[in-house]
Amino acid sequence: MTTQAKRPLIGVFDSGFGGLTVLRELLHHLPGADFLYLGDTAHLPYGSKSQAAITRYTRAAIRELVSRGAELVVIACNTASALALPSLQDNAPVPLVGVVGPGADAAAAIVPPGSTVLVLATEGTCNSHAYAEACAARGLQAVEKPCPLFVPLVEEGWTDGPITEQIADVYLKEALAAALHPPLAIVLGCTHYPLLRPLLQREIAKLDDNIPIVDSAEATARHTATLLPSAAVPESSGATPATGEPTLVPTAAVHSDAEPHLHFLATDAAAKFQRFAPRFLGREIPTVELITLED
Amino acid sequence: MTTQAKRPLIGVFDSGFGGLTVLRELLHHLPGADFLYLGDTAHLPYGSKSQAAITRYTRAAIRELVSRGAELVVIACNTASALALPSLQDNAPVPLVGVVGPGADAAAAIVPPGSTVLVLATEGTCNSHAYAEACAARGLQAVEKPCPLFVPLVEEGWTDGPITEQIADVYLKEALAAALHPPLAIVLGCTHYPLLRPLLQREIAKLDDNIPIVDSAEATARHTATLLPSAAVPESSGATPATGEPTLVPTAAVHSDAEPHLHFLATDAAAKFQRFAPRFLGREIPTVELITLED
Repeated sequence: MTTQAKRPLIGVFDSGFGGLTVLRELLHHLPGADFLYLGDTAHLPYGSKSQAAITRYTRAAIRELVSRGAELVVIACNTASALALPSLQDNAPVPLVGVVGPGADAAAAIVPPGSTVLVLATEGTCNSHAYAEACAARGLQAVEKPCPLFVPLVEEGWTDGPITEQIADVYLKEALAAALHPPLAIVLGCTHYPLLRPLLQREIAKLDDNIPIVDSAEATARHTATLLPSAAVPESSGATPATGEPTLVPTAAVHSDAEPHLHFLATDAAAKFQRFAPRFLGREIPTVELITLED
Repeated sequence: MTTQAKRPLIGVFDSGFGGLTVLRELLHHLPGADFLYLGDTAHLPYGSKSQAAITRYTRAAIRELVSRGAELVVIACNTASALALPSLQDNAPVPLVGVVGPGADAAAAIVPPGSTVLVLATEGTCNSHAYAEACAARGLQAVEKPCPLFVPLVEEGWTDGPITEQIADVYLKEALAAALHPPLAIVLGCTHYPLLRPLLQREIAKLDDNIPIVDSAEATARHTATLLPSAAVPESSGATPATGEPTLVPTAAVHSDAEPHLHFLATDAAAKFQRFAPRFLGREIPTVELITLED
């Protein structure tokens, strides 16, 4: 019988349930970890709130997750990654992973240096210019386009159909008109937007060549896996096995039989959280614990 | 020289800046009052939050307004009027005026008893069935229709144009299909919706006869004026003067030269509040004081 390694507990923080798209990727890439997810639904949405408030809420959330045993916290919310993470990173009690850097990495991986990329995000994320800075650090130019109607459209369940197509069309045309050079990739800089990805890919095909769309959820999960290799899917078990790798038993194999333990916290409207979760996470969630965060 | 009467201070509470449409009507109907407006922008929007949270926020806001001298508080937010007001009314330190009752009054004034009326509102207001109860108490049937995209559309500034027309069309058709009897009036049960009124009136004309639209802002201001007659426009100064009224100097005349004093408080994003205000209030606002409410 294999000795059971202790499964790391990863904290995942978002303003609501959008970050469940990131948790979905984390579950895929870190099958040997357990997860504690906190949605700050009392203050949702963050997109239109101030940097000071978002930093206060994020600090309180990290404190809560760490007090419950999280060894690493993924800030799955783009707005919080953009506005709060830079000032919280240095004094954090555990490693913090944001979604902006990995999102920019995902774009940089598929376009030539010096390219322009289009970032679709909330007003708060765009105003922070966090993606522009992250892209510049990787030798890319970013055009940041706020799309305030996308989150309510996704929450209304209108992820397809002519109305959402027209709204996407307005935003995409405005964004392309604002770009000095044609963008070679589109970054979805909001956790809700992956649910609009098929529609956006169709709309962009009507306007232009097929500009590839990347979202930061998968890139964030890959980056997190490098920080907790014992809980990750070993590279050799992927679809493209590396040749010449030592044929050791993959570390993750010791966890492969166990289902990850998931626990969900929300600061308000737990019932709604539970109802929306399957759309973002791809599975039902059993319970949501209602908590109050001390600001 | 006329003796200057003390001007009453009216507190106005909303989840954000939407309640400024109510303040606009209050300024019109109570020219002899001063106003203290509090927008709980830290928790905005209320439409999707729980009753427990909304009650907590509303209680804290009333406490703040009263501690600053408000003699009466208008709960300008439909969701807070629906979900929090009933439980706070009895122990309130000053009279509280909500918008749901006056909104139902406004509908009852223009339709025959037993009529069906259509209430357009947020998810939270609809789920509370506060309008259905208020309408039932006035002998009316209400069909309550949540319109979650209207608030973000107004905040995006898309109060006209084909996309908003189509969204309104979807909501209105769904609502009319759900009504057992054709509605004879439409109540705008959200403070943002008056900005969509011209578009809604056009869309409803395409679908049906011209169903009249009422909003609760004006009805609420009229009701408040009856509670503070010294600050109100006397009926005799209105457009349709009542014949045979005594020709006393109207009470409000003592205030007629003075500009009302307005002070604005917000719990977050004061700059955005100031930027959005003119669209709802019809005038610029000089400053917004940022405050923290103790839950």
